[in-house]
Amino acid sequence: MEHTKGRVTIPTDIDVIPETLTLMERWGADAVRDCDGTDFPKELREVDAKIYSTYYTTRKDNAWAMANPDEIQQMYVMTPFYTATGRSLKIHLMKGLYPDMLTPNSRDDIKRWWEVTDRTTGEVVSTDKWSYDEKDGDVTVQTEPFHDYTVSFLAYIMWDPVHMYNAVTNSWENVEHQITFDVRQPKTHAYTMKRLRKFIEEHPYVNVLRFTTFFHQFTLIFDELAREKYVDWYGYSASVSPYILEQFEREAGYPFRPEYIIDQGYYNNNYRIPTKEFRDFQAFQRREVAKIVREMVDITHECGREAMMFLGDHWIGTEPFMDEFKTLGLDAVVGSVGNGATLRLISDIQGVKYTEGRLLPYFFPDTFHEGGNPVKLAKEGWVTARRAILRKPVDRIGYGGYLKLATQFPDFVDYVESVCDEFRELYKNIKGTTPYCIKTVAVLNCWGRMRAWGNHMVHHAIYHKQNYSYAGVIEALSGAPFDVRFISFEDIKEDPSVLKDIDVLLNVGDADTAYTGGEWWCDPVIVQAVKEFVHQGGGLIGVGEPTGHQANGRFIQLANVFGVEEERGFTLGYDKYNWEEHSHFILEDCTGPVDFGEGKKNIFALEGAAVLVQRDQEVQMAVNDFGRGRAVYLSGLPYSFENNRLLYRSILWSTHDEENLYKWFSSNFNVEVHAYVDSGKYCVVNNTYEPQSTTIYTGDKNSFQLDLEANEIRWYEI
Amino acid sequence: MEHTKGRVTIPTDIDVIPETLTLMERWGADAVRDCDGTDFPKELREVDAKIYSTYYTTRKDNAWAMANPDEIQQMYVMTPFYTATGRSLKIHLMKGLYPDMLTPNSRDDIKRWWEVTDRTTGEVVSTDKWSYDEKDGDVTVQTEPFHDYTVSFLAYIMWDPVHMYNAVTNSWENVEHQITFDVRQPKTHAYTMKRLRKFIEEHPYVNVLRFTTFFHQFTLIFDELAREKYVDWYGYSASVSPYILEQFEREAGYPFRPEYIIDQGYYNNNYRIPTKEFRDFQAFQRREVAKIVREMVDITHECGREAMMFLGDHWIGTEPFMDEFKTLGLDAVVGSVGNGATLRLISDIQGVKYTEGRLLPYFFPDTFHEGGNPVKLAKEGWVTARRAILRKPVDRIGYGGYLKLATQFPDFVDYVESVCDEFRELYKNIKGTTPYCIKTVAVLNCWGRMRAWGNHMVHHAIYHKQNYSYAGVIEALSGAPFDVRFISFEDIKEDPSVLKDIDVLLNVGDADTAYTGGEWWCDPVIVQAVKEFVHQGGGLIGVGEPTGHQANGRFIQLANVFGVEEERGFTLGYDKYNWEEHSHFILEDCTGPVDFGEGKKNIFALEGAAVLVQRDQEVQMAVNDFGRGRAVYLSGLPYSFENNRLLYRSILWSTHDEENLYKWFSSNFNVEVHAYVDSGKYCVVNNTYEPQSTTIYTGDKNSFQLDLEANEIRWYEI
Repeated sequence: MEHTKGRVTIPTDIDVIPETLTLMERWGADAVRDCDGTDFPKELREVDAKIYSTYYTTRKDNAWAMANPDEIQQMYVMTPFYTATGRSLKIHLMKGLYPDMLTPNSRDDIKRWWEVTDRTTGEVVSTDKWSYDEKDGDVTVQTEPFHDYTVSFLAYIMWDPVHMYNAVTNSWENVEHQITFDVRQPKTHAYTMKRLRKFIEEHPYVNVLRFTTFFHQFTLIFDELAREKYVDWYGYSASVSPYILEQFEREAGYPFRPEYIIDQGYYNNNYRIPTKEFRDFQAFQRREVAKIVREMVDITHECGREAMMFLGDHWIGTEPFMDEFKTLGLDAVVGSVGNGATLRLISDIQGVKYTEGRLLPYFFPDTFHEGGNPVKLAKEGWVTARRAILRKPVDRIGYGGYLKLATQFPDFVDYVESVCDEFRELYKNIKGTTPYCIKTVAVLNCWGRMRAWGNHMVHHAIYHKQNYSYAGVIEALSGAPFDVRFISFEDIKEDPSVLKDIDVLLNVGDADTAYTGGEWWCDPVIVQAVKEFVHQGGGLIGVGEPTGHQANGRFIQLANVFGVEEERGFTLGYDKYNWEEHSHFILEDCTGPVDFGEGKKNIFALEGAAVLVQRDQEVQMAVNDFGRGRAVYLSGLPYSFENNRLLYRSILWSTHDEENLYKWFSSNFNVEVHAYVDSGKYCVVNNTYEPQSTTIYTGDKNSFQLDLEANEIRWYEI
Repeated sequence: MEHTKGRVTIPTDIDVIPETLTLMERWGADAVRDCDGTDFPKELREVDAKIYSTYYTTRKDNAWAMANPDEIQQMYVMTPFYTATGRSLKIHLMKGLYPDMLTPNSRDDIKRWWEVTDRTTGEVVSTDKWSYDEKDGDVTVQTEPFHDYTVSFLAYIMWDPVHMYNAVTNSWENVEHQITFDVRQPKTHAYTMKRLRKFIEEHPYVNVLRFTTFFHQFTLIFDELAREKYVDWYGYSASVSPYILEQFEREAGYPFRPEYIIDQGYYNNNYRIPTKEFRDFQAFQRREVAKIVREMVDITHECGREAMMFLGDHWIGTEPFMDEFKTLGLDAVVGSVGNGATLRLISDIQGVKYTEGRLLPYFFPDTFHEGGNPVKLAKEGWVTARRAILRKPVDRIGYGGYLKLATQFPDFVDYVESVCDEFRELYKNIKGTTPYCIKTVAVLNCWGRMRAWGNHMVHHAIYHKQNYSYAGVIEALSGAPFDVRFISFEDIKEDPSVLKDIDVLLNVGDADTAYTGGEWWCDPVIVQAVKEFVHQGGGLIGVGEPTGHQANGRFIQLANVFGVEEERGFTLGYDKYNWEEHSHFILEDCTGPVDFGEGKKNIFALEGAAVLVQRDQEVQMAVNDFGRGRAVYLSGLPYSFENNRLLYRSILWSTHDEENLYKWFSSNFNVEVHAYVDSGKYCVVNNTYEPQSTTIYTGDKNSFQLDLEANEIRWYEI
């Protein structure tokens, strides 16, 4: 491959100056950066590259934080459930929480901002029935015997959770706990703008301010043993304070309640069907965050620097897929790439000049130690990300961590060199062109575009037993030749014609979660629009418990579209005769039993549906005709190349388009074809770490036989 | 064993007169009976035994039925869901139904008694928006496009479902379909009393009228192919007619709606949390059925005969565990015994002089054919039933079917001879005594005593993938040394002191079903009573999704009592560290991995609970302390001797009574000990079909070693 230069960022440190220069040359890097825990060497200030500097908007200035304790960032925390055994109950607020991280805020009026809730009845306990003893840290509640109680309280974040995480994970010793201050509050707001200018003045060699990030940390709490206790990469509970909540009250026009954030202890996580109040709060935060981000971006620009946002840490409220984001004026967004979906989480962002993906592995001792195999991780990371890049590229890639560690692994350095060249080659080939899309598919849930590519994510791309069977669908889509949209029930409600130019709708997840919609399926407007869409020829693919919600004689609300229903005890009296498995177009590339991941229990097929897979009298896959449209039911679909093909065939079948299967197609599902018709190119890419043989079908359905090396990508002119 | 006589009923027929006499002698039978499809031979009218005669209250008189078509029994039927694709929809009522069995009732005012429902909105369609074409059998509805519709209609039962079942199953040819008439209606009521008198007069040799049964068939419907379509042994939907529904309206004081019976197509099956209206309707039926049963019983007595009720077929409304039953004046109840639970369904009935269990197998060609092994089935049936008999005996046993078939299997005849002697021996030993009960346990659900022993039953003892893991608990209890009660939430609500003399509460089943309680767990009175019960030292055993209902931040509503919760996506953000398995008293007799049956997915343990079994990070069993009480969670517990032991140990542990384990105890769980302290006896019984060795512990914890033959029962004096 031709050795090229550019579009790559590497980390540096004071102890790797010559190595930095060597690797800049070998990897073709045109930007260097510091990281949390490293320093940018003076000697490289004049280097022929852009220089990024991390900038911590909300921390790394304890003097300010301690001088302004009232403007330390706060979060809402709910205690566990405690059962009263008599007429009084003492609840120690900090039980289960890391003592150095949080301090209850009793500075503000606790009777206004805290809430004691009877979780047996769901009712708020009147404020005259509880009191707080600051000395002991206990709330004492007058109780009904054997009711459960929780206290929702505000706490100051006395140790920034990410700083704490880094300190604990890397065993940093004697490190001062960085306190998180709230840039949204008046004194800190004013100070922050000065502090930013000062930082820029003191760092004249820095070209790019890499904000890490803006104001509000996603929810992250540690327990007494400094173990992670609660995490939600999308959590808004650490973006609060009486100051901003009073603003919210004025704007929303109704009184605020802690419960709007606490949400029974579920903290409005992404699986919860969002309440109006939480949607209002998010919208308020987006608008307010946008204003102050804009201020900081303007200062950055005024000082002749670029403003880059890290999509992580304190990113809450920026919401890159929502309208406010385009008003920020940012130059760039950078984010960590764990798989295809997280790549698209960055590359699909609009309204910035460029995007950058931080590839794995980070150069940290957990990987770069004797006996470690960073090349293996790098290959897995690159090949996974590449699928998505081929659909929608980031503009740059980069690495993070301690460069010194990387230099100790020469095969890793070699491999990254090839990745960088390969990235530049494919970027040159595809940037600005539109990849050929076989179909337009839309994922329908309660969040729509706000959680585009982030469906079923809890802590970024971290595995959970309960999410991988669904997240696999999103991962498959991230690198598939489809125009992928994310729409919400509200989108349909506002304008059912949003379905007009969509070929296939997907509804993926467990019943009564925001990812399937729960009670939304009792809204006749939604039901009518979706059924009509299918009846008139649209495809519908449901995974898990699509449209699941117990009401009106159904659990799977669109049971007569999917042709399946779930046995929840209520239909045991109905005899079920439809168990015979059918061979089918969708299954034709399967090499063995389909991997449905966790699958689903108790699904049965209605009369007329075709069962494709049932196991022990539980349907895992079925298809059904509905009018001119078709529906596919899958009990789960973890990501694999084989399942990716199964989804591809499902989408084609559901749109009656089986005949176009052999178009930009590889007979071997480990290999994919991406066509860029308007630029007259296509590529064939081996997604595996072994050589592959396949037959490639071009757009005119002509074919040729091809052998590819492990991971190989090969480019062709059309 | 001593050869004894009595307490046994056998079938006869005209072709087995000498065999009947021989078997009466060998089996010690003191009663003979006819069956559906057999005739009682004249030659045996003077036999030295009681003679039973089946009596069909609601059928076997087509002349009457055809002369009084308005009084043919009716049932409510709901069509499947149909999706409108435009402004009008035609629904053919009889689609999916066996045409000869049902005829829609358009004789009565269909606009009053039928209901067309928009199942998308749950709203009733105004009667001016639909019409019925009798000729085509279609209802035409003015519709909203893409809404779903059903029609609930009344249909005459033109072929008694049990008669149809017998005819189809036994391939009876040219048999006239027996029409079911409604004894509750005025003309048929009057006629029935005359018909009964006439029958008695014409059968002077009959001693016992075995009513099969009274007025209302449990719900049983067949499809176009004469296959079973819907069955509910507890179903009330075939007990209706405008005549009785008008009475109900007057009594209830509110207007009747078909939906009260239809229940979204779920027909108020036992898994549904019963509505007030359905409870009202059941109570009305019980009272009205009781009145007319009493009339028939009185006539029977007046004519000097005994009245025996078959607990099956048309038993709906009699409800043997409810107060009205004791007013019927019946002499006896007989029922089919499929296992221990169905035995107790009969033997626990109060208010009759005697109970009789019809043992398996029936002498039918499906078992008694060349190569068949009726002895095996007889052993299984007897050993299963015997466990329950030892706790609460029926007063008689019996067999049914074609005696001729039985005589062709000499080893079967031998085995039954031993069963009959053994039954008489154990009856002599235990009748009238109270078996020693280690604990008082109560199963808590929405039904309480009305569904005692019938929990999780759909079609009597028939297996369902979704019920065996729960029914196993009831089966275990049916033969266990506990005083077993069945209480309802209403019982607690009316008087929380109902928990006072209970040692252990059980809540068994899937969330949001009547067997766990659903929204009842949001009632503070219930929650408070149950938590207080445990906190003060009570035991709580939950199986499946006990107390499961999503509300107030919990799915398992008593999560802090059980120490477990279910991950439904809403708590993925909470880190879960409690996965370590602990050895435990409860598991000490387990020989290998516990069989949880279907088990449960996504259960995790809270801090402080002790996980006993987790599989692939899903807790299947955990225990937890709550105040002075203890809770045990099990994900499922199908019946087996090993699981029976596990439940026994759970009950002892949950009441802090581990020290009394070795009291009336067998070290080998295949063998059980039943003590009858007040009559100074105890027995040791081998429940298996192989010899067993064990150590037996008596009430004073002394022990001895014992070897038992297959199936052996051995009696001792205390």
